[in-house]
Amino acid sequence: MEKSYEILERTPTVLRTLLSGLSDDWIMNNEGPETFSPYDVMGHLIHGEKTDWRDRTVMILEHGTEKTFVPFDRFAQFEASKGKSLTNLIDDFEKLRLDSLTWLKSLNLTEEDFNKKGTHPALGQVTLRQLLSTWVIHDLTHIAQITRVMAKQYKSEIGPWIEYFRIMSF
Amino acid sequence: MEKSYEILERTPTVLRTLLSGLSDDWIMNNEGPETFSPYDVMGHLIHGEKTDWRDRTVMILEHGTEKTFVPFDRFAQFEASKGKSLTNLIDDFEKLRLDSLTWLKSLNLTEEDFNKKGTHPALGQVTLRQLLSTWVIHDLTHIAQITRVMAKQYKSEIGPWIEYFRIMSF
Repeated sequence: MEKSYEILERTPTVLRTLLSGLSDDWIMNNEGPETFSPYDVMGHLIHGEKTDWRDRTVMILEHGTEKTFVPFDRFAQFEASKGKSLTNLIDDFEKLRLDSLTWLKSLNLTEEDFNKKGTHPALGQVTLRQLLSTWVIHDLTHIAQITRVMAKQYKSEIGPWIEYFRIMSF
Repeated sequence: MEKSYEILERTPTVLRTLLSGLSDDWIMNNEGPETFSPYDVMGHLIHGEKTDWRDRTVMILEHGTEKTFVPFDRFAQFEASKGKSLTNLIDDFEKLRLDSLTWLKSLNLTEEDFNKKGTHPALGQVTLRQLLSTWVIHDLTHIAQITRVMAKQYKSEIGPWIEYFRIMSF
C-alpha cells in the first residue's frame, strides 16, 4: 500500500506540471474519433475519483460480492467538464484525490480487507487488492496516454524519424 | 517553435515530479530484457542532451548534408550513469536542458534555417525542422514509456482488470 500511495499522491502534481499553461493545441486535440484529449482525460480522472474507486471500495467492504458495482461511465466527462478550464479540472482533481486518500488511510485496511471480494458488472469477482492496484495503474497509464496523445500532434512534423517511434502507431 | 519550447522547457520538472522520491521498485525495474527502466531513461535523455540534439543542429547549420551525423549510442547511459542517484541524473538533465534551450534561442533560427538539411546515418536526408520536432516527441514518448514501465510493475496485481489495459501488452 505504501508503494501505491507514492503514486496516487503525486498524480495531481504530475498532471499540473505536465499540462498547466500549455496551448490548446496540446491539450484539446485527441488521437482520432472516440478518443480522449488530455483535457478529456482530466475529466475522466475526476469522474473516477467521484464515482469509482471510493464507492467500489465501500461496496466491497460493506456488501462483499452481493451487490454489483455501478458500471463506470467512460463518457461522463464530456458533459461534466463543460465550461471548465483545464486549470479548474486540475484543481478539482487535486482536491478530490486528497480527500480520497485521507479517507482511504482512515480505513486502516488490513490484509484480510485486501482479500475481500466484490462483483464487477463485466469482470465478475475482484478483490479489494486488485481494485486498489488498478487505481494506481489507471493513473500511470493515463499519464502515458496523455503524453502519447500530445506526441501524436507532431506526428507529421518528424519526417523519416517516425520509423523510430513505435508508440506513435499505438 | 513556441509550441516546442512549451514542452522542452517543462520536461525536467515533469520528470522530477514524476520520479523524485519513489522507491527503487518503481525506478529500477524495466519491461524485460533489453528494455529501459525509468532510471535508464533518465540517463538516455542526458546522453541525448550531450551528444544528439545540439550537435546535430550545429551539423545541419554548418555542414548541411555534407557530413553525416554521429550515430546515437542508445546504450551509453549504462556506463555513464554508474554510481549516480536518480536525483543526480534529474539535476544533471535539468542543467543540460536549460543550457540547450538558452543556446537554441540564441541562434534566432529563421524559416530558412528550419528548412536546411542534414544527413542522418540511417534515415538519410532530414530537415532541421524535423530534428527539432523529433526532440519534442522524444521527450513526450519517453515520459509515456516511463509511466508504462511503472504501470507494468503492477501487472500481476490487477487480476481480471488487465483486459482493460491494452497498453500493458505494448
